[in-house]
Amino acid sequence: MQPELLNVADYGRAAEATLRRDLFDYYDGGALDEITLRENVASWQRLKLYYRVMAGVTSRDLATTVLGRPVSMPVLVGPTAFHRLACADGEPAAARAAARAGTAFCLSSLSNTPMEEVFGAASSPKWFQLYLYKDRGLTRELIARAESAGAEAIVLTVDAPGWGNRERDARNGFRLPPGLSVANVAPVGKGDFPEVEGSGLAAYVRTHFESALSFDDLDWLCSTTDLPVVVKGICRGEDALRSAEQGAAAVVVSNHGGRQLDTAPPTCDALPWVVDRVAGACEVYVDGGIRRGSDVVKALAYGARAVLVGRAILWGLAVDGEEGAFAVLEILRRELEEAMLLCGYGSVSDIDGSVLKP
Amino acid sequence: MQPELLNVADYGRAAEATLRRDLFDYYDGGALDEITLRENVASWQRLKLYYRVMAGVTSRDLATTVLGRPVSMPVLVGPTAFHRLACADGEPAAARAAARAGTAFCLSSLSNTPMEEVFGAASSPKWFQLYLYKDRGLTRELIARAESAGAEAIVLTVDAPGWGNRERDARNGFRLPPGLSVANVAPVGKGDFPEVEGSGLAAYVRTHFESALSFDDLDWLCSTTDLPVVVKGICRGEDALRSAEQGAAAVVVSNHGGRQLDTAPPTCDALPWVVDRVAGACEVYVDGGIRRGSDVVKALAYGARAVLVGRAILWGLAVDGEEGAFAVLEILRRELEEAMLLCGYGSVSDIDGSVLKP
Amino acid sequence: MQPELLNVADYGRAAEATLRRDLFDYYDGGALDEITLRENVASWQRLKLYYRVMAGVTSRDLATTVLGRPVSMPVLVGPTAFHRLACADGEPAAARAAARAGTAFCLSSLSNTPMEEVFGAASSPKWFQLYLYKDRGLTRELIARAESAGAEAIVLTVDAPGWGNRERDARNGFRLPPGLSVANVAPVGKGDFPEVEGSGLAAYVRTHFESALSFDDLDWLCSTTDLPVVVKGICRGEDALRSAEQGAAAVVVSNHGGRQLDTAPPTCDALPWVVDRVAGACEVYVDGGIRRGSDVVKALAYGARAVLVGRAILWGLAVDGEEGAFAVLEILRRELEEAMLLCGYGSVSDIDGSVLKP
Amino acid sequence: MQPELLNVADYGRAAEATLRRDLFDYYDGGALDEITLRENVASWQRLKLYYRVMAGVTSRDLATTVLGRPVSMPVLVGPTAFHRLACADGEPAAARAAARAGTAFCLSSLSNTPMEEVFGAASSPKWFQLYLYKDRGLTRELIARAESAGAEAIVLTVDAPGWGNRERDARNGFRLPPGLSVANVAPVGKGDFPEVEGSGLAAYVRTHFESALSFDDLDWLCSTTDLPVVVKGICRGEDALRSAEQGAAAVVVSNHGGRQLDTAPPTCDALPWVVDRVAGACEVYVDGGIRRGSDVVKALAYGARAVLVGRAILWGLAVDGEEGAFAVLEILRRELEEAMLLCGYGSVSDIDGSVLKP
Repeated sequence: MQPELLNVADYGRAAEATLRRDLFDYYDGGALDEITLRENVASWQRLKLYYRVMAGVTSRDLATTVLGRPVSMPVLVGPTAFHRLACADGEPAAARAAARAGTAFCLSSLSNTPMEEVFGAASSPKWFQLYLYKDRGLTRELIARAESAGAEAIVLTVDAPGWGNRERDARNGFRLPPGLSVANVAPVGKGDFPEVEGSGLAAYVRTHFESALSFDDLDWLCSTTDLPVVVKGICRGEDALRSAEQGAAAVVVSNHGGRQLDTAPPTCDALPWVVDRVAGACEVYVDGGIRRGSDVVKALAYGARAVLVGRAILWGLAVDGEEGAFAVLEILRRELEEAMLLCGYGSVSDIDGSVLKP
Repeated sequence: MQPELLNVADYGRAAEATLRRDLFDYYDGGALDEITLRENVASWQRLKLYYRVMAGVTSRDLATTVLGRPVSMPVLVGPTAFHRLACADGEPAAARAAARAGTAFCLSSLSNTPMEEVFGAASSPKWFQLYLYKDRGLTRELIARAESAGAEAIVLTVDAPGWGNRERDARNGFRLPPGLSVANVAPVGKGDFPEVEGSGLAAYVRTHFESALSFDDLDWLCSTTDLPVVVKGICRGEDALRSAEQGAAAVVVSNHGGRQLDTAPPTCDALPWVVDRVAGACEVYVDGGIRRGSDVVKALAYGARAVLVGRAILWGLAVDGEEGAFAVLEILRRELEEAMLLCGYGSVSDIDGSVLKP
Repeated sequence: MQPELLNVADYGRAAEATLRRDLFDYYDGGALDEITLRENVASWQRLKLYYRVMAGVTSRDLATTVLGRPVSMPVLVGPTAFHRLACADGEPAAARAAARAGTAFCLSSLSNTPMEEVFGAASSPKWFQLYLYKDRGLTRELIARAESAGAEAIVLTVDAPGWGNRERDARNGFRLPPGLSVANVAPVGKGDFPEVEGSGLAAYVRTHFESALSFDDLDWLCSTTDLPVVVKGICRGEDALRSAEQGAAAVVVSNHGGRQLDTAPPTCDALPWVVDRVAGACEVYVDGGIRRGSDVVKALAYGARAVLVGRAILWGLAVDGEEGAFAVLEILRRELEEAMLLCGYGSVSDIDGSVLKP
Repeated sequence: MQPELLNVADYGRAAEATLRRDLFDYYDGGALDEITLRENVASWQRLKLYYRVMAGVTSRDLATTVLGRPVSMPVLVGPTAFHRLACADGEPAAARAAARAGTAFCLSSLSNTPMEEVFGAASSPKWFQLYLYKDRGLTRELIARAESAGAEAIVLTVDAPGWGNRERDARNGFRLPPGLSVANVAPVGKGDFPEVEGSGLAAYVRTHFESALSFDDLDWLCSTTDLPVVVKGICRGEDALRSAEQGAAAVVVSNHGGRQLDTAPPTCDALPWVVDRVAGACEVYVDGGIRRGSDVVKALAYGARAVLVGRAILWGLAVDGEEGAFAVLEILRRELEEAMLLCGYGSVSDIDGSVLKP
């Protein structure tokens, strides 16, 4: 009998026991020496919560809004690639889990399922993660397709001007298994979805994605779509502020889960500087290393409006498909509520920086 | 033959060897990742004692008072649940040990023995630890019962608006063994002690204990009893000061032994901020991670009037009942006296912050 | 089949598997407790890169100059002893690898190959590392020989007034294998290359090298040669500044790879102080613990103009001769370019200290 | 064949392999959790040496004076108990080793050899370590005996008002083996040397040694003897200054090798505060955790005039009697000279705090 899975880390271990090594490593690994990968988790754990007592809180309201749309809790499903490596259902399973949990679902460009099918499975908010194409016409078509499919925001990834060097994948000879398509990247050349199995993906990315992303591109993107634009992958206050000034509705403090630049700062360390510099000019989210509800309290105490989870969802999918992904979200919800209870917070909007100081 | 038990940690190891795993884990475990649990111990160990020499101290006076009542040393027996898991005698054994050691005994609400029987075994000071009931009438009856039984103070636990998530217990399927009653919680419903074996306890707690504790409740409590009120479970200076202002005679800097909010600050780190803010408005005690007499010196140097020990007593009970609990207290007394000798202190009241600075 | 060697550390492990233990240890070991050896690597790893996004960088220019001469990247081949312990080709193989990589090659005085042969294999820049002889006449002859052989700079080692105590070598009874000559030290006595096999080397060094090196010697050296002088082995700002003031064209912040004074500061910690004090009076390079392209970014962000690599080249030689050394350089180039890409730098000259701060 | 012993730690390991476990532990162990024991070593290792280059130093002069008497190096033999546990010769072997090394020898009160015999084997400086007796008459007689035997200083131990609790000894049931006398404690009662085998020692200590040592006693001691008085066991600046003001010629920053108050600060951390406060009013020495010549440089850089070594000598005695003790001293001398060479110091009196700063 499967041992009881009590927390997100349990799902990680169970996923490791379930998945083929190379697939688990593709999800689990980080860039180079994986220093940022480890620090992402450790830095939240090091932070202390100076909880308040006798706060007279009768109930806990976890609901909030992101980009003006209600979510049941400040824990969103961030974009991650290739859900069909984890389970047959893939992205629709994750989208349904998010919908059941009442939270936002962000679909990766590197999905194994066409966005139309995924967004059909998701309730709101549903966001589409975008890599900018060198060919702006293709990019515009992809955005138009996302708009038609019901996307409510475009999440522009800015921390991946190149592919992070994940050595576990190289050692494993990781290749996308046959039969899995990359369904949301723009058709190039033959007018069909690209052949991106195996190492074709890296070549496709190198050939077609914009590696020279600039703030002008952000301008262009904001003018191209009426959807709110979220800039994901920021660790510096000035980059976040400029994003807001140039039209971003939100930024995500993120280092791509430790998969891009190794020795990038853990997001827990970067977040307070970003919040301080942005000074309310846009919403700030954070991802990277969130494993416990108390991590969510800490992120909100630093001024984030919500957190995104990535690997946790993949682990849930690997263990039990939609049910597993949903279970992971409910674990985080329960832990967040318990942490708020123990910290004396009745509403996520009450969480403030005082809880981080004696 | 049992190896000689030289220190509190030895008793911990011996208890681990003696008790059934699930029972030991119930005592030993902390919430979630047990970060606060480990840090409680480590933070005292990290603190350095800049001992004084040639202080001309001819003897050591360990006696002090708590709430105006004399104790033989500033090491009190804090409230812990279910002593009959450790030994057949349970709470009366612990109370007798405290009495023999000349120190205070605080009985937990979650005792396996009726308070009348326990307080009969204890000499002064004897305190009763209270969880507030949603039903204030029941609470008042319980307080009245404690007053009649001889309690000299009410220790209000404020860090447990909900039940800490101790994953060891979940993994072990921990249930209170049959035949053990929870003897001091208020009778509810049938007018009898509740059925709280197994998971009934958590349900009882959730149903009847006040989870929305407020400072108004502290007012109410102080007006309801003439006994001094001790507020236990504080890590913030402002909460401690407000407790004192609203009538608390003392506060306990505590994180419930790392069993409630994981990543709460270790008490050694929180203590100096609390003492500074309270500024003498009430007595300050501390618990969490006290394993050596030198830890007591450090706590007093930070301004605590006394420390409470919890697991140490449980370990003593598990190893040798009353004798074990008494032995643990005497180890701490001997170590405290030795540390005072080596630090140049003739009286616990002489211990001051200078010993923490070069 | 040999597992794929993805990074410099892989080459280190492969070299360890290939070389005889005593020879590997000679390359790999450091002085005494090897504290500086370990800290050299760890301190770069601890430093965080606050990468910039949307920098609009279309290409990456890694080329720079050192001492006014162009190199294809700011990664130079530092002087290391006895390349023929690693492969039969020895120093010429390393020099050809550097030439193919378009970077500078610095030949050690303790080469197994005459400098004329090595410099013949190298393209520019080619530098000669010098230990000052007690006999200034001999020193002058050696410099003249280097000038004739095509050296473009003299790199004066100043952190080795005595031989570092590398206990691994003592435990292994390390001796230079028979048949290997030390080809660039000055002929002494018999007018021939010295017998320096085995422990003869240490005796030769002790007898003939100047252990009382002074800033006057630097004056003398600068007046003796028209070549630019690089002072290698500095960890203090004032020593670097004085070197510049007395004519050094560059300094190398170095602790001899942790092989001389154990508990010397890791170069990553010393570098910013040196750069600050030198204030542009000369070029500053750094070596010690560079294992990743991101380390190069950090060094340049602290103000170094280039880094030198030592053991990495030896590992490459041990694994695959010239090809291995070249591969290591190309790994560092690729990683540097990737780190620049991910940090938003289009040119090594753009790298500045802002990337180290939030 | 015995592996070559290259450094002090090698002697420690060899001693461990040689001695009966309980005897090795008696030497090696510290108080309680041995936190101070470990930190003593680690804190020197953590300190970094910002060595100077091109200092033009032609030779190294390690000679200095302590209490106005010349020693060949600033490494003295500190007082340690019961040398006959290590080798048959015991204290005379250690004294002869110190004499051969040209350094001071301090004899412990807890010697297995009468001081007359030991001091006969030692050349100058020879010091006698004293525990004050409750009976001042006895103390005066012991001092007179030391004076007659040739002692040149009285080293008053002030960090042992009681016996440190070394749990290894308790676990091992350590008892002084039969046939070993404690030859320098004052005769009590029967007018003969006390029976202090086994646990008799602790009882003797408890009964006769002064546990209420005061600064008045220091006055008394200074007035009782014309010999210079060294106060050993200090970690606070104010205690050191007061000692100097009341006549001490020197203080030793020491925590008794981590054998008295556990969590006392490592001496490396305490030393600079003491030096700063004493401000030259007396000489300052330090012991605790000195294992390398570079540790000596660090101590002198912090302002100590000399260091004392304890366990290192015992390890030497255990491995090879007088030869072993001498070898250990010569290792430290060689390492000190090498560290001075590499740091650019020509004389121990040149070593200053600048080497600890960038």
